[in-house]
Amino acid sequence: MKEQKQQQDIFFSDKERQALYKTIFNRRDVRGQFKSDPIPDDVLSRVLYASHHAPSVGFMQPWNYIIVKSNVVKQKVHSAFRKAHEQAANMFDKERATTYRTLKLEGIIESPINICITCDRTRTGPVVLGRTAIDTMDLYSSVCAVQNLWLAARAEGLGVGWVSILSEEALQKALAIPKEIIPIAYLCIGYVSHFYQKPELESAGWLDRVPLEDLIYFDQWENSKSSNTAPLIAQIKKDSDFPHAND
Amino acid sequence: MKEQKQQQDIFFSDKERQALYKTIFNRRDVRGQFKSDPIPDDVLSRVLYASHHAPSVGFMQPWNYIIVKSNVVKQKVHSAFRKAHEQAANMFDKERATTYRTLKLEGIIESPINICITCDRTRTGPVVLGRTAIDTMDLYSSVCAVQNLWLAARAEGLGVGWVSILSEEALQKALAIPKEIIPIAYLCIGYVSHFYQKPELESAGWLDRVPLEDLIYFDQWENSKSSNTAPLIAQIKKDSDFPHAND
Repeated sequence: MKEQKQQQDIFFSDKERQALYKTIFNRRDVRGQFKSDPIPDDVLSRVLYASHHAPSVGFMQPWNYIIVKSNVVKQKVHSAFRKAHEQAANMFDKERATTYRTLKLEGIIESPINICITCDRTRTGPVVLGRTAIDTMDLYSSVCAVQNLWLAARAEGLGVGWVSILSEEALQKALAIPKEIIPIAYLCIGYVSHFYQKPELESAGWLDRVPLEDLIYFDQWENSKSSNTAPLIAQIKKDSDFPHAND
Repeated sequence: MKEQKQQQDIFFSDKERQALYKTIFNRRDVRGQFKSDPIPDDVLSRVLYASHHAPSVGFMQPWNYIIVKSNVVKQKVHSAFRKAHEQAANMFDKERATTYRTLKLEGIIESPINICITCDRTRTGPVVLGRTAIDTMDLYSSVCAVQNLWLAARAEGLGVGWVSILSEEALQKALAIPKEIIPIAYLCIGYVSHFYQKPELESAGWLDRVPLEDLIYFDQWENSKSSNTAPLIAQIKKDSDFPHAND
């Protein structure tokens, strides 16, 4: 085994922690506020490095990045979105379908860059350390790469929108992705006029944010009451303004 | 539609950006360096809020958090790990199996807290905005919650290890999770004696980090050469020490 060096800067200052929380709480799924300004290569390079340093099962790094700037390709993806969007609208009941049709759900054409992050399930061979019991672990790794990219983009002032209303097959066809490679996320990326304070679906009254304390169990599913853990729930309720520190 | 306020602090300073990158590049999958020191409730609360503010498809927030401190429950999970680990070892060829058996791959007992993050696929009803074309999107949302938690924990000085060598069924049984709720990640969390500079599997020679520039395509799969995009690749090669800024 090679020498394992330790990190020297193990601790984070309060300001560094605050910067991370600012990134996490100010990250938004951007659909309608894109500007056409180009993204400098040094910015894009940093964002991609952040993504590439996501955790991956068995260190397999199953991701690729297809950077889409071609208008022809974007139009193909947009056409696939329109088709999937129309099919989706018909799945909701009448009232929800009406609201659904008013929502702006993608910025494929307006954003200067789209990036498709994929998962190559065959990378590093058929047996992957850590994927032996749960075979979706490699897909999850590529999702971690998406979230790292999203946070890095926010800290660089870039908006990111994840377009999930697309059939995998149509996306594979538009980007010439082989059948065995799974497209995990199709992202629209660019500078923005503004970021909203809250998620757009929350502001639109589509769904409310669930109180965090309602999502916490102790030791067993649905065990939400425990004298040992009451202080944590009290702390969570006390902290309920924490995510809105930047309001 | 309710009023949509805009974020006031849209920009990040260089120091704030550096703090995010420090978090991303110093995050490690921790298996063997846990200390038994308890995690204060205010720290745990912040980490859980960061996780809860992950993106989710259709704002469905499909996650729950089962916080495990009971030794009896931990022993059940550890026993499920041992079984899955033994089965896994037999899947590798002889040389890899020998190495595999020497690796420390979990810290279930030593870490003061384990957290299972789940995905409730039925939350908010059968039709979920954004999950209509790709039905794994809700699982991916819970993975984003894992990655947010992991980064927040690192900035708080906490190590996190994702134990994926577990059968879903055994984990459901140990935590009394109903069949229809998917356990996405079983995480070991605690303060650590140190963080390694590089991922342990990289140091152990299990696999090397792939050069980022080899993972980038333009407009179409496997299109890695483009006169328009050569400057980005040059920038990426120039930045190749960037993730090791903290070495």
